[in-house]
Amino acid sequence: MARNSFGQLFRITTFGESHGPAMGVVIDGCPAGIALAEAELSAELARRRPGQSAVTTARKEADQPHILSGVFEGKTTGHPIAVLVHNEGQRSADYDRLKTEFRPGHADETYAGKYAHRDHRGGGRSSGRETLCRVIGGVVARKLLPAEMRIIGHAVTIGPHRAEVFEPEQIEQNPLRCADPDVAKAMEAYVLELKAAGDSTGGEVEILVQNPPKHLGEPTFLKLKATLAQAVMSIGAVTGFSYGAGFATATMRGTEYIADRKNFGGMLGGITSGDDLRLNVSIKPTTSIGAVAKGGRHDPCIVPRVIPVLEAMVAIAMADAWLMHRSGDLGLG
Amino acid sequence: MARNSFGQLFRITTFGESHGPAMGVVIDGCPAGIALAEAELSAELARRRPGQSAVTTARKEADQPHILSGVFEGKTTGHPIAVLVHNEGQRSADYDRLKTEFRPGHADETYAGKYAHRDHRGGGRSSGRETLCRVIGGVVARKLLPAEMRIIGHAVTIGPHRAEVFEPEQIEQNPLRCADPDVAKAMEAYVLELKAAGDSTGGEVEILVQNPPKHLGEPTFLKLKATLAQAVMSIGAVTGFSYGAGFATATMRGTEYIADRKNFGGMLGGITSGDDLRLNVSIKPTTSIGAVAKGGRHDPCIVPRVIPVLEAMVAIAMADAWLMHRSGDLGLG
Amino acid sequence: MARNSFGQLFRITTFGESHGPAMGVVIDGCPAGIALAEAELSAELARRRPGQSAVTTARKEADQPHILSGVFEGKTTGHPIAVLVHNEGQRSADYDRLKTEFRPGHADETYAGKYAHRDHRGGGRSSGRETLCRVIGGVVARKLLPAEMRIIGHAVTIGPHRAEVFEPEQIEQNPLRCADPDVAKAMEAYVLELKAAGDSTGGEVEILVQNPPKHLGEPTFLKLKATLAQAVMSIGAVTGFSYGAGFATATMRGTEYIADRKNFGGMLGGITSGDDLRLNVSIKPTTSIGAVAKGGRHDPCIVPRVIPVLEAMVAIAMADAWLMHRSGDLGLG
Amino acid sequence: MARNSFGQLFRITTFGESHGPAMGVVIDGCPAGIALAEAELSAELARRRPGQSAVTTARKEADQPHILSGVFEGKTTGHPIAVLVHNEGQRSADYDRLKTEFRPGHADETYAGKYAHRDHRGGGRSSGRETLCRVIGGVVARKLLPAEMRIIGHAVTIGPHRAEVFEPEQIEQNPLRCADPDVAKAMEAYVLELKAAGDSTGGEVEILVQNPPKHLGEPTFLKLKATLAQAVMSIGAVTGFSYGAGFATATMRGTEYIADRKNFGGMLGGITSGDDLRLNVSIKPTTSIGAVAKGGRHDPCIVPRVIPVLEAMVAIAMADAWLMHRSGDLGLG
Repeated sequence: MARNSFGQLFRITTFGESHGPAMGVVIDGCPAGIALAEAELSAELARRRPGQSAVTTARKEADQPHILSGVFEGKTTGHPIAVLVHNEGQRSADYDRLKTEFRPGHADETYAGKYAHRDHRGGGRSSGRETLCRVIGGVVARKLLPAEMRIIGHAVTIGPHRAEVFEPEQIEQNPLRCADPDVAKAMEAYVLELKAAGDSTGGEVEILVQNPPKHLGEPTFLKLKATLAQAVMSIGAVTGFSYGAGFATATMRGTEYIADRKNFGGMLGGITSGDDLRLNVSIKPTTSIGAVAKGGRHDPCIVPRVIPVLEAMVAIAMADAWLMHRSGDLGLG
Repeated sequence: MARNSFGQLFRITTFGESHGPAMGVVIDGCPAGIALAEAELSAELARRRPGQSAVTTARKEADQPHILSGVFEGKTTGHPIAVLVHNEGQRSADYDRLKTEFRPGHADETYAGKYAHRDHRGGGRSSGRETLCRVIGGVVARKLLPAEMRIIGHAVTIGPHRAEVFEPEQIEQNPLRCADPDVAKAMEAYVLELKAAGDSTGGEVEILVQNPPKHLGEPTFLKLKATLAQAVMSIGAVTGFSYGAGFATATMRGTEYIADRKNFGGMLGGITSGDDLRLNVSIKPTTSIGAVAKGGRHDPCIVPRVIPVLEAMVAIAMADAWLMHRSGDLGLG
Repeated sequence: MARNSFGQLFRITTFGESHGPAMGVVIDGCPAGIALAEAELSAELARRRPGQSAVTTARKEADQPHILSGVFEGKTTGHPIAVLVHNEGQRSADYDRLKTEFRPGHADETYAGKYAHRDHRGGGRSSGRETLCRVIGGVVARKLLPAEMRIIGHAVTIGPHRAEVFEPEQIEQNPLRCADPDVAKAMEAYVLELKAAGDSTGGEVEILVQNPPKHLGEPTFLKLKATLAQAVMSIGAVTGFSYGAGFATATMRGTEYIADRKNFGGMLGGITSGDDLRLNVSIKPTTSIGAVAKGGRHDPCIVPRVIPVLEAMVAIAMADAWLMHRSGDLGLG
Repeated sequence: MARNSFGQLFRITTFGESHGPAMGVVIDGCPAGIALAEAELSAELARRRPGQSAVTTARKEADQPHILSGVFEGKTTGHPIAVLVHNEGQRSADYDRLKTEFRPGHADETYAGKYAHRDHRGGGRSSGRETLCRVIGGVVARKLLPAEMRIIGHAVTIGPHRAEVFEPEQIEQNPLRCADPDVAKAMEAYVLELKAAGDSTGGEVEILVQNPPKHLGEPTFLKLKATLAQAVMSIGAVTGFSYGAGFATATMRGTEYIADRKNFGGMLGGITSGDDLRLNVSIKPTTSIGAVAKGGRHDPCIVPRVIPVLEAMVAIAMADAWLMHRSGDLGLG
């Protein structure tokens, strides 16, 4: 696997820097004959876009996707689908300081050491803006998977606030993407308070995959749990990954663990059992804060904007596993 | 990447079932001229071997490694290093029930559905015995990396018991591999109690990488944190992975997070900064328990035996990243 | 390796159909700090462009490359370099017949069978226009390789005409790219005659790599001769590949073969020895001829336009081998 | 792709040196439920074995394959199939001179330069003995492909002798594997004459694939012709590859070329059309000749022993393409 590609049979390759002319993604391995429109991509990009509410950055990004290849008369052709999103409204001068000053907890420091030459503006390639390419890939990936399958990400923790009820229809009704409407209000108030103080907060996201196909994932190194871990840990803001009972298994007894299939998180031996998948992911607080963020425009809480990216990476990993499953598991008839 | 291979430039390919004639590993990409002896492999395999104490299974596995290729007159030749470990003392008949009965939380169920034909004995390919191949790969991987680098895994949690002090020289002095000698005793008592009750326990392991080379890992999808996540999540017993402050970031404020570089876990933008790496991994309780385990011989707590496997996978991922770093980051001179 | 990507450490991913909005390439794995300008790409694209002389198609393609990423202030950053070339002046209606009628010897037939949905215009993805992306990749690849290394392709056979002398400075002085100025004239006359008759001709190209670095290529499946074969055989028009004495070895005795190191073609055991590489490639006659070509605009002899593509693929394969060589062969110091 | 692995979904990884304890292959990606017996592997290995006639080396190699994994109760399980063949009867001392003296045209020279440490005995890893691993992989590969498909290799040229008739049932009836019984006799006499003179000869092999499945191969870089080229050029003795009309296309007119579908070699746009495949391969004369070979035991003509290896590599490449075809081309239903 190359540095900027993810997946084997269904593969995305991303490119672009936040302050260059455009971001882009090449999606290779999508079968032919699938309806695909730019409007579908825009709709999902809108979920990731900044400036949707007071809890995210005020930066405006139009994020208009242009399909350059692989789609003819509204349907995929089996050839690589390239999608471009032009960058607009960057204020590069805001970042002049970053040429010599590194933001704490940022790639600025390691990129500067690793590379002989660096685009410092807005983090260059390390900018979160790269993730819009993944969202585009995710839209296509989802189309390969059975229609009854659903991927649902939602904020379960924001700072001290933890969701207690799961009402999925509430998720898109509040700026934090929390499935507990009461807790969502407390989360919002907390984030606004931190924003006013020039601070930020981390959070935890749960991703459910309902009605997944059986038999996705491969033994040994391509266990689906390993591929999903790589997929979501490749997102800059993610600090931890677990499935099923996750870190709680550390204190569980075997009898407890096997008493509830939900603890298995939908995978046995790394392969989907048909049960719903349950994944948990921790997100670090934005480190571009206070004086450090001066000039740039940043999110006091990145969680709601990471959710569509997490969902996309899960979809891409599953689409790839689905194509691998089809290649050899169906018998040779 | 194939199902049974891990790594790009430094790659291991493993094979073998627990009740077949042998387990084996092919290590491709090890540079020439490195001293390597079977005794070094044996020494590390001994750390993973069952039957070392009352807290692990009583199964005896001699685990004598045989180097079949890639080493000439005691040194590597740059060609694939194949190592074989013959299986002995399997009691296949113990597993006859597993032909039709699936152990809860086990790959038995999904393998049976995914494959037209299955080796049910001892879990076949899904057996934990596969991990000895990884331990062998890890010994070789470590030799590529700078000598001053150390990888140290230790049990931080076993059920309700959590280590409070870190005395690294204690780790190999107690059966749980705990760096806190007092807590280690409580852990041992707890595990023996569960064993007597036909039950088991999970745990949490911390892996430290001291003095890592700078600049390992690549942007976007090959961030070292993503590769490490895949590496350790590909081990059957692992249910969660985090780095640095990990899941605690969910409740942290940005100002808190940046106040201590330890929270960054030694990676910025997914690339090593030169700071020590800190990884945390949760391990599920053995599910082969009580009546279910009847006939087989199993561990009431797999944690101490997983530690050498975790260390090995970290070493392999880092050796691969090291070779990639060398290929392009050093300038073209 | 994915369908539309070539190379491991130095990798190109291409996309685009001849009658879509643009062709593009993503180049991943180019080290940082290398000067790269759009003008250099244009210069090399000009060598592949149609309409340069009467022996090639009259189609006009402006082929203006736009660098979208990976280059900052005129130098590479180590991140993916995406380059876009907009398509202009396609006359799609010319191809309406191809919806149901397949050109003989063309991908039209197999694509129609393989894919549920197809872009028939100008061959869609199978168009030779895809190769301009490879030419772009080749310009970058060459920059990684030692400056004293030169890659020189030239036409040795066009129909019944075979070059007898090698005067490299002549190659770019005639439309066939032949190093023998007298034979070049006969070749040109022959091609114009076929053009008038609505026919076409094949040819043979020799590619020399002068002053190659030693030790490129890996044993077993990554022998450089195997990678080069794949690289050039992936070009649509290429029907055969050989190195060194090539097919003449079939009638040689061992004593003859070893008498001249030139027979070894610069590779021993698939690894460069430091001697010049010698590769030979056969090119089929254009099959879009006579009534078949009616409406489309085609080349009576594609050989001179394939030469820059061949050179590019050789450069890409060698750049990839060079990075692999650097990763592990240089000792671990 | 790693150095010692070939294929993506169906992948072989080979290891072993001619004078080490064993050669071995790991076959990953074979679906479950396929009958596989060691006797089938032995039968095909016998075709490659030395000492079958006076035209090949007198070295005796028993070549008994041992299946170590991936097969249970006579059928594949979908897990990696490892097969070991122990080395016997090596006379390592015969090769002592090679420590400092390089055989002309051999990997000895480049390996010595590329690697800090080298196994010089019998060429070590570069020994032709490695190809028996490929033959084993080929037996398994063939089982994935439709039963009506046949792969037939035969010698068309040995030195000045060229087969004129094709009687497939004759191929295994003469030591050169020539389908023309009269020419076979002349070939044999020629080889024995060279043998007496301490010399050797090259040759050309044609490989036919009868009744291949349609739609194997992928556009752009995974065209089947490119994958086949890499597959066969990765064999040490092979100096050239072509398909269909091959190098003869250099002198063909377009009207000639399209007049006979056989010229297309069974692939259009790099994808199988359902027509029989026709591949041609040139083989260099053995370079271990005369005084050079003194002490070692070598073949005056390697062609008949390379044929099973060529057939195997073609089978492996096609099995891999077949699995890829199945993954995405069959629609999503």
